[in-house]
Amino acid sequence: MSDFEIDWDREARTGVAEAVLCDGKTVAQIAAILEATGPRRMFLTRLSEEAHAALPDAVRTGLEYDPLSRTAVHGGPAGTLVDGPVVVCAGTSDLPVAREASRALVFAGYAAPVIADVGVAGLWRLMARLPEIRTHRVVIAVAGMEGALFSVLSGLVAAPVIAVPTSVGYGVATGGRAALSSALASCAAGLVTVNIDNGFGAATAAIRLLRAMDAPH
Amino acid sequence: MSDFEIDWDREARTGVAEAVLCDGKTVAQIAAILEATGPRRMFLTRLSEEAHAALPDAVRTGLEYDPLSRTAVHGGPAGTLVDGPVVVCAGTSDLPVAREASRALVFAGYAAPVIADVGVAGLWRLMARLPEIRTHRVVIAVAGMEGALFSVLSGLVAAPVIAVPTSVGYGVATGGRAALSSALASCAAGLVTVNIDNGFGAATAAIRLLRAMDAPH
Amino acid sequence: MSDFEIDWDREARTGVAEAVLCDGKTVAQIAAILEATGPRRMFLTRLSEEAHAALPDAVRTGLEYDPLSRTAVHGGPAGTLVDGPVVVCAGTSDLPVAREASRALVFAGYAAPVIADVGVAGLWRLMARLPEIRTHRVVIAVAGMEGALFSVLSGLVAAPVIAVPTSVGYGVATGGRAALSSALASCAAGLVTVNIDNGFGAATAAIRLLRAMDAPH
Amino acid sequence: MSDFEIDWDREARTGVAEAVLCDGKTVAQIAAILEATGPRRMFLTRLSEEAHAALPDAVRTGLEYDPLSRTAVHGGPAGTLVDGPVVVCAGTSDLPVAREASRALVFAGYAAPVIADVGVAGLWRLMARLPEIRTHRVVIAVAGMEGALFSVLSGLVAAPVIAVPTSVGYGVATGGRAALSSALASCAAGLVTVNIDNGFGAATAAIRLLRAMDAPH
Amino acid sequence: MSDFEIDWDREARTGVAEAVLCDGKTVAQIAAILEATGPRRMFLTRLSEEAHAALPDAVRTGLEYDPLSRTAVHGGPAGTLVDGPVVVCAGTSDLPVAREASRALVFAGYAAPVIADVGVAGLWRLMARLPEIRTHRVVIAVAGMEGALFSVLSGLVAAPVIAVPTSVGYGVATGGRAALSSALASCAAGLVTVNIDNGFGAATAAIRLLRAMDAPH
Amino acid sequence: MSDFEIDWDREARTGVAEAVLCDGKTVAQIAAILEATGPRRMFLTRLSEEAHAALPDAVRTGLEYDPLSRTAVHGGPAGTLVDGPVVVCAGTSDLPVAREASRALVFAGYAAPVIADVGVAGLWRLMARLPEIRTHRVVIAVAGMEGALFSVLSGLVAAPVIAVPTSVGYGVATGGRAALSSALASCAAGLVTVNIDNGFGAATAAIRLLRAMDAPH
Amino acid sequence: MSDFEIDWDREARTGVAEAVLCDGKTVAQIAAILEATGPRRMFLTRLSEEAHAALPDAVRTGLEYDPLSRTAVHGGPAGTLVDGPVVVCAGTSDLPVAREASRALVFAGYAAPVIADVGVAGLWRLMARLPEIRTHRVVIAVAGMEGALFSVLSGLVAAPVIAVPTSVGYGVATGGRAALSSALASCAAGLVTVNIDNGFGAATAAIRLLRAMDAPH
Amino acid sequence: MSDFEIDWDREARTGVAEAVLCDGKTVAQIAAILEATGPRRMFLTRLSEEAHAALPDAVRTGLEYDPLSRTAVHGGPAGTLVDGPVVVCAGTSDLPVAREASRALVFAGYAAPVIADVGVAGLWRLMARLPEIRTHRVVIAVAGMEGALFSVLSGLVAAPVIAVPTSVGYGVATGGRAALSSALASCAAGLVTVNIDNGFGAATAAIRLLRAMDAPH
Repeated sequence: MSDFEIDWDREARTGVAEAVLCDGKTVAQIAAILEATGPRRMFLTRLSEEAHAALPDAVRTGLEYDPLSRTAVHGGPAGTLVDGPVVVCAGTSDLPVAREASRALVFAGYAAPVIADVGVAGLWRLMARLPEIRTHRVVIAVAGMEGALFSVLSGLVAAPVIAVPTSVGYGVATGGRAALSSALASCAAGLVTVNIDNGFGAATAAIRLLRAMDAPH
Repeated sequence: MSDFEIDWDREARTGVAEAVLCDGKTVAQIAAILEATGPRRMFLTRLSEEAHAALPDAVRTGLEYDPLSRTAVHGGPAGTLVDGPVVVCAGTSDLPVAREASRALVFAGYAAPVIADVGVAGLWRLMARLPEIRTHRVVIAVAGMEGALFSVLSGLVAAPVIAVPTSVGYGVATGGRAALSSALASCAAGLVTVNIDNGFGAATAAIRLLRAMDAPH
Repeated sequence: MSDFEIDWDREARTGVAEAVLCDGKTVAQIAAILEATGPRRMFLTRLSEEAHAALPDAVRTGLEYDPLSRTAVHGGPAGTLVDGPVVVCAGTSDLPVAREASRALVFAGYAAPVIADVGVAGLWRLMARLPEIRTHRVVIAVAGMEGALFSVLSGLVAAPVIAVPTSVGYGVATGGRAALSSALASCAAGLVTVNIDNGFGAATAAIRLLRAMDAPH
Repeated sequence: MSDFEIDWDREARTGVAEAVLCDGKTVAQIAAILEATGPRRMFLTRLSEEAHAALPDAVRTGLEYDPLSRTAVHGGPAGTLVDGPVVVCAGTSDLPVAREASRALVFAGYAAPVIADVGVAGLWRLMARLPEIRTHRVVIAVAGMEGALFSVLSGLVAAPVIAVPTSVGYGVATGGRAALSSALASCAAGLVTVNIDNGFGAATAAIRLLRAMDAPH
Repeated sequence: MSDFEIDWDREARTGVAEAVLCDGKTVAQIAAILEATGPRRMFLTRLSEEAHAALPDAVRTGLEYDPLSRTAVHGGPAGTLVDGPVVVCAGTSDLPVAREASRALVFAGYAAPVIADVGVAGLWRLMARLPEIRTHRVVIAVAGMEGALFSVLSGLVAAPVIAVPTSVGYGVATGGRAALSSALASCAAGLVTVNIDNGFGAATAAIRLLRAMDAPH
Repeated sequence: MSDFEIDWDREARTGVAEAVLCDGKTVAQIAAILEATGPRRMFLTRLSEEAHAALPDAVRTGLEYDPLSRTAVHGGPAGTLVDGPVVVCAGTSDLPVAREASRALVFAGYAAPVIADVGVAGLWRLMARLPEIRTHRVVIAVAGMEGALFSVLSGLVAAPVIAVPTSVGYGVATGGRAALSSALASCAAGLVTVNIDNGFGAATAAIRLLRAMDAPH
Repeated sequence: MSDFEIDWDREARTGVAEAVLCDGKTVAQIAAILEATGPRRMFLTRLSEEAHAALPDAVRTGLEYDPLSRTAVHGGPAGTLVDGPVVVCAGTSDLPVAREASRALVFAGYAAPVIADVGVAGLWRLMARLPEIRTHRVVIAVAGMEGALFSVLSGLVAAPVIAVPTSVGYGVATGGRAALSSALASCAAGLVTVNIDNGFGAATAAIRLLRAMDAPH
Repeated sequence: MSDFEIDWDREARTGVAEAVLCDGKTVAQIAAILEATGPRRMFLTRLSEEAHAALPDAVRTGLEYDPLSRTAVHGGPAGTLVDGPVVVCAGTSDLPVAREASRALVFAGYAAPVIADVGVAGLWRLMARLPEIRTHRVVIAVAGMEGALFSVLSGLVAAPVIAVPTSVGYGVATGGRAALSSALASCAAGLVTVNIDNGFGAATAAIRLLRAMDAPH
């Protein structure tokens, strides 16, 4: 009996396809999963450059890999993209997480542009991009350090806002706890959050929202 | 100049009306806010029985108060309710938070039935209610202690699931940190969470989702 | 030998007079300190209404007491006030701490107006008051919950900004740790902070700044 | 006098043989312990691949080493195995800890099959294996992230369940605290737990149970 | 539909009957549960003296209440008791938790004597009781403060040992975290633990063990 | 069998007599212990004014009680006192803990003067008392808030210094963790510490030292 | 659209120029920012020796790099320096942070001498330098471990004191939390603090103060 | 002016010579300190093998280095040793810290034998060494994991006991917090503790005690 059980029916059941969290898995385990996947599509997260390079050639050549976000797509790109969330991030250092979210959305068939470097210390940068942000149905906000972006943004748009705290920062911000607390304790009503650095989780939450929005009713 | 500035336009701007968090405010401050509110509607959270009883008669008689959830409605009920989220809670002790969410939704015009006592230690109780849960567009899950309900429920429904950890529990569960961590660390993709005991926040997040779903597109 | 040693020369040495932190002291100890103070002026912090009421009449009648901030002035008001800091606070519940700072400044001879209820969830409320805030030489920012006000304000003014996190909030904001982390981890350069709920400490820090500004050079 | 004192009589006294926790010991210390052990059997935990490779040949060739679980057996295999616990684990990344438990049980003479990848996000995978799990006298449950498996499993079987939280996860799950809290705060009565990643400890606890079960009474 | 769903079949399924955790429930909710219970037996934990006194007479007179452990038995005593665990506790202040465990075991039909005040600071007190302790099939160890009893006891007996850390202590021991860490980090192999102050949980874990021991095999 | 076992021989064995920690014990338990003590001497710590007042008259009249330190002496005063430690404390609010230490030393036959209000913010107050402090063989330093007194004092005297952090303070100092960390992380070599608020523990540690000093060698 | 948005007007608006926090950015991102900066001046923090060495030659040769503080200056030195703060640090290990502060001040045109190794365990070393320290308008105090320097220094000078806790230390001082707590909980009034290891933040706070002092009034 | 100020008079003032904590210092800084030390004796702690190997030959050849404890002696051995403390440690992995303490004592002229591997899980190993332990005037106890050794040992000897928690362990014991809490929360009166892994600090505390014991009185 094999060590893993891929949940091929998850997409049908919950509207979200399964992905492979590579962190904590050996290269052999990742390769075995991809071989079992065969021609089906699969999204991989937290695949380090070292692990990617160590994959057997036959497996690695089938992957479209992005080192900044440490994500890979197996099985080819999605078809035509439909309008999806905007991913807004506070600083350049938050880009790996923002791109993980954006790429997971693209994998699932949604366009998901990233707007970077609009931290609240320079508020007018955020204000300048606000009209563009407001055209989207869902907003994913990505920020580390003190995470003030979450509250400010949530007070400025009517769409659902999903916060993704990142582990960017040092001292009391180490590990992302300060940004996470800011998201949870926000004075801005209606903000929801996911785990630190969990760009993929924010993307799948957004997909649930978008599918519910697009369902006939 | 007064000590408070009510944000009368918030609803137009973000789709969610302002509410009064009574915890940390004096009885005099709460009364002044309600007097300034006049005939408009207002929702009050964390209004203790002592504070409620201490309000001036003229103010208190205008409130519909629920001691279990410590919430009050000023300005009369909403009109006809439209279908809204289901609020699922793990144990009887989670009811105050579940009702805070449910009553905030009703205040905003959404029906929000509560399904109680379906913790995962007795999984079939949850399973028995699953068909009913699946008829709703949004699910709010309320649980304290170890918060295993969040992951289980999120794996069983396709709708967006908003977790509300509660401070129910003792020892390592004191204050709700264990349940909060369970929501954030969940292996179930697409789960989002709000602060501990923040039933009102979950309700307002749900309202953002529902308004986005109901918007013409 | 008595149990306390008042530092009568502190003001000469450090530019800041000593005050009495009443929390943790018995009513008898507080009364003894005030009797030893005699006609000199003294500022008292964290004096509960119960402790204030329990003081001997001879002592209590010499105090100007403010129950909201739990502060008292012994020895009469300061003379003419000179321009001092502005105290900006996020919510009504932060007022006790904001007033502790403001009253400590007034005790020391500085005017210190309080601008309340300008939290970042309703950004335009803060923006509307910005011209007034910018007329001051020092800004004290008081906020609980997620403390996003600190970063936003620090990015909008050129004056020194002193953050005072408050213990307002629940769940992950309990005790003020979330707001404190936001102040310390802020992406806005040049922000400094004091301990949670330490309005008096922010006032004395501001006094050090103002005295340095006003020193001949 | 040597730096270590092996407790050769522990098995007679407590029913559980001593093992060597290699983490924190130098290669020279590990080698010295094994030389002192001579022909007796010994189980080694947390033996890194680097430390294993650095052992003197004479010592290393006597070891049966498993790199995934970082465990080694000195002195040859146990004789015939009797029925023992089942080790159930939530994800592929939990396998190192699950195998540490399983191999410690096999070392002690108990069969201990591992059932992997039955996390609660895909509940039917667990349900499909439930009949097999219920044939065992003791269940060891291994899970990281939010650890919801512990409560669900404990509610589904009548046998004693020993939880082993793992350090698998990131953000709030870093280090295994979230899973540990879930085990301790579980709403499922009668669940017991051991330290994070302590597969060996769970195995020895299970051995105490099995010996008590098999004792004449 | 009622707010609670009692799991009448839990005992058949998991070998352990459901109990009512009264903390966090209103008096009205507790009374309603007991009325629904009718003539069946039920065990109540964390029932404060105030809540007990406030129950309706008809309900309260059916309870056998123990104020020290804050537990109550509804529906009369168990029949003949069979030999069960010994409950060993470190100090007098740990007795409420020890008695919660002992009374839960007696409720389920097991004799469970308590041996008190055998903390390791006076090791000979523990040694003097060791022969008696060793006559039992399962040991429940209850300790607060630094919880050294767990490791010492676990090294001296061959039976399964279940640790119950208590919240007895101050400073770094506040809330029971120090004792809990001692149980989890113990150098004594095969020790398992439950949540802080969870005497009932230790009892139900012991019942699972005893039923497994007593099952035909 | 009684619920407590007094360790009458502890003094002979470890040089320190047992005491009764009243916190966590019922009034009935405290009374029973004192009755069992009979004419022997006993020291009681953390005896609240409420508990003291609730003791049976026969027991209470035998106690010499100090409400500030919440300590009581049963069995009459010690005989002639010999020179003992000096107890140095940072602020008036630290006096309850300082007196607990001082009274425990006097109970054991050592003079232990208290020097109060010599915190490092006014360094010259400490310097003025330094000659007196240096006449003592052992120094007990008691401080809350940031605990800077420990390092400063330890750098100024050659005698052994025992730090007692106190729970005096608010914000990050709540519960005494900041002062405890200062004592443990001190840059001043040779400082040792006890638990937060543990004046009794510091006294007994000092007694061990003094007995070792006074032993013939 | 590029991934970063440099805030060229920050200096005009807040009196403090933007800097580049290199930690968390790729070498390619740092190079791109410097190329966009062109002939303008820029300060870089947390630039590791590895990242510095990996920069393209054209970029690296334009930098004046200091490996101890991991800072670099792009665009040439400031002109004539005016009197600025003194940077006082407790130990040799605190020098990297002290130099980050000092170099940031020099970049902005302020002389900022460093006084090292004046920790409070050897109080006379600090006392010997006190006259020199008192000649400065602002004091930056840098300390790790227990951070007692902050309180002592703040009690000895009248100028504003900015504390910079460092991550120097081990055990309870790991990561700098003990020193940070000491700064925040200080009994010395008027002390303000910045994040752990944030020498740059202290420098920019000092610049805000100095500009306010030097403004005409 | 140099970056360091060695406190050559510390020994005369406090009875304890200064040492060099190498962690956090560059190799160049360590070399400079040793060159400044010249023919005087100096003790170095936390000197890694890499740093030791990287020292200039002229400096390194003057050092007697012990890689297990990462300590070095500069300036030659002490003269004749007098009787000093015994260092008792729980496991082989605690030896580095135990040897740091022992070597620091030998450097200062005290014999300090180490008794290893006497953890409480095998209590008779400790009991067998008890007569030898009791011959010493001071006991240093070194333990990681749950640190139960501290309480047990403190209850068995009359001499002063100094606890040194170590960072040995994993899961909840990571970093040594569990062992530290055990030392601080110990039910055994008169135990004192130092920072995690601070063998040098325990040695210097012991030296203060021994000097006080040996002082004429």
